[in-house]
Amino acid sequence: MSFIPEFEDIEAAGRLISPHVHRTPVLTSKQLDAISGARLFFKCENFQKVGAFKFRGATNAILNLTEGQRAAGVVTHSSGNHAAALAHAAAKRGVKAYIVMPTSAPEVKKRAVAGYGAEITFCEPTQAAREAAAAEVIERTGATMIHPYDNFYIIAGQGTAAMELLEEMPVPDAVLAPVGGGGLLSGSAIAIRHLAPKAKIYGAEPLLADDAARSLRTGAIQPALPPRTIADGLLTSLCERTFTVIKNSVDDILTVTEEQITEAMALMWTRMKIVVEPSSAVPLAAVLANRELFSGKTVGIIVSGGNADLSNLPFGQKG
Amino acid sequence: MSFIPEFEDIEAAGRLISPHVHRTPVLTSKQLDAISGARLFFKCENFQKVGAFKFRGATNAILNLTEGQRAAGVVTHSSGNHAAALAHAAAKRGVKAYIVMPTSAPEVKKRAVAGYGAEITFCEPTQAAREAAAAEVIERTGATMIHPYDNFYIIAGQGTAAMELLEEMPVPDAVLAPVGGGGLLSGSAIAIRHLAPKAKIYGAEPLLADDAARSLRTGAIQPALPPRTIADGLLTSLCERTFTVIKNSVDDILTVTEEQITEAMALMWTRMKIVVEPSSAVPLAAVLANRELFSGKTVGIIVSGGNADLSNLPFGQKG
Repeated sequence: MSFIPEFEDIEAAGRLISPHVHRTPVLTSKQLDAISGARLFFKCENFQKVGAFKFRGATNAILNLTEGQRAAGVVTHSSGNHAAALAHAAAKRGVKAYIVMPTSAPEVKKRAVAGYGAEITFCEPTQAAREAAAAEVIERTGATMIHPYDNFYIIAGQGTAAMELLEEMPVPDAVLAPVGGGGLLSGSAIAIRHLAPKAKIYGAEPLLADDAARSLRTGAIQPALPPRTIADGLLTSLCERTFTVIKNSVDDILTVTEEQITEAMALMWTRMKIVVEPSSAVPLAAVLANRELFSGKTVGIIVSGGNADLSNLPFGQKG
Repeated sequence: MSFIPEFEDIEAAGRLISPHVHRTPVLTSKQLDAISGARLFFKCENFQKVGAFKFRGATNAILNLTEGQRAAGVVTHSSGNHAAALAHAAAKRGVKAYIVMPTSAPEVKKRAVAGYGAEITFCEPTQAAREAAAAEVIERTGATMIHPYDNFYIIAGQGTAAMELLEEMPVPDAVLAPVGGGGLLSGSAIAIRHLAPKAKIYGAEPLLADDAARSLRTGAIQPALPPRTIADGLLTSLCERTFTVIKNSVDDILTVTEEQITEAMALMWTRMKIVVEPSSAVPLAAVLANRELFSGKTVGIIVSGGNADLSNLPFGQKG
């Protein structure tokens, strides 16, 4: 196993996980085409199990465990979709999952992870506390760490969404995916570089969490910023593994404001009638904010997830 | 043309409108099956053009105009989805549409109807004022009145959704549709009685707008109640045409509370990741409130529309 997956690894992941994950639909919208001036094809991972593409990578990671690793279980630290995805993927294969979550995680996420039968360890909401708690679990149980994105099988699994997208749309001029830690973007880039070598590949990121854009610009991984964006799935920083792919294969990282994210999210809810979380609206926001790049073009968009918190929506009071 | 459509009229409507309307998907949800204890199949008209099943009936009505009628245009009074549907269906066929809307209609609906090129006449928000304004338009222009549900072609068009649903699901034990004026429910009932004669057919209605339930119970059409329910698509009362079908073919009208509607709507948003308007959640609310009727059963549900107002959602502050 090499450091970075190749296209063959994404194909292998696709074969392995396809009985266990949803083949999500590719949706189009004449209204959004008219608004954007482009032909948009949305790969809707909000309809994926646990409501996010994360279930692809997590399933691939679980299915690639050795017999010994299966017996000892898996561990991760996450307060988001990866925690639920790993808990669910592990439970489905009879593997014990240990999830380290910050005490500050939303109740609904804690309940979801517990509902999948995972053992939760709570810790203070700092990166150091998370890593210490995970290290303690590994020492106690021998569980295998499944990092949310700094993991060969996770990246290969996430790349299967872009692979499926390109099977169901015309050859794209450009493809966009949101970027947090870069697992989805790097997996997508590996798939697209192989399947549509001439397509432009863009990451899309909130301006308030623009560490990936600055990393690409400076040539060195920049740390994550304090969590201020509504796109709460995109707070993490790149790792060497994902940054290597992104440097080599991604054309640019486009940044968008909070207002642009909210507007794009409202367009997807009201025009496409699909529930997406704020992070999922970031690529459409980038298309609308960069008409010179996308006007008249055929564009693929990875819609990352649909786990929006209905009690905390960004839509305002105006009619 | 008879007073009430037969199944052949729904088939004819399906052939006529299919090039112009979306074949909407039939979605399932393992999570909602587990919660309800039933096997649920959702016909998702929230993905229909203009975001509601109303585009089916409106398209059928427009395509059945005579040459003379086409030249004079069509008129209706509605502040809701029928207005937008008729305006859009008419515009697509080059037919002038006159829409009477109350001054109190939401700005977003006024803009939508105007955006389709319809001529809007504003009136006071009373039934009498609406009818007077429509009569004035007819006198002035010779336009043909296309009533939102008291219309042969509208009912036949709305029935095509249930016909498509039954083509894509196992033979149902029961089918539910929301009921306002009864166009969707009576069209659905005609289709289902023919295609699945043993299936139970239920209308679903807010308790705060239970005129259809009381009409069925008393054997006489009861007037609409003051608009207090969040299911703003279900405020109208039955007409003789729809009531005749409902008396003959519908097994019961199930009523649900506002809280049950909001809960069912939140389930559809969070579990199915689809945007539905409150009226569309009423049938699922009825399934969840009547487990004795649906437990272990195969159940079809018509999801009527997705035009929810994001600035005025019923979800609370709790997490």
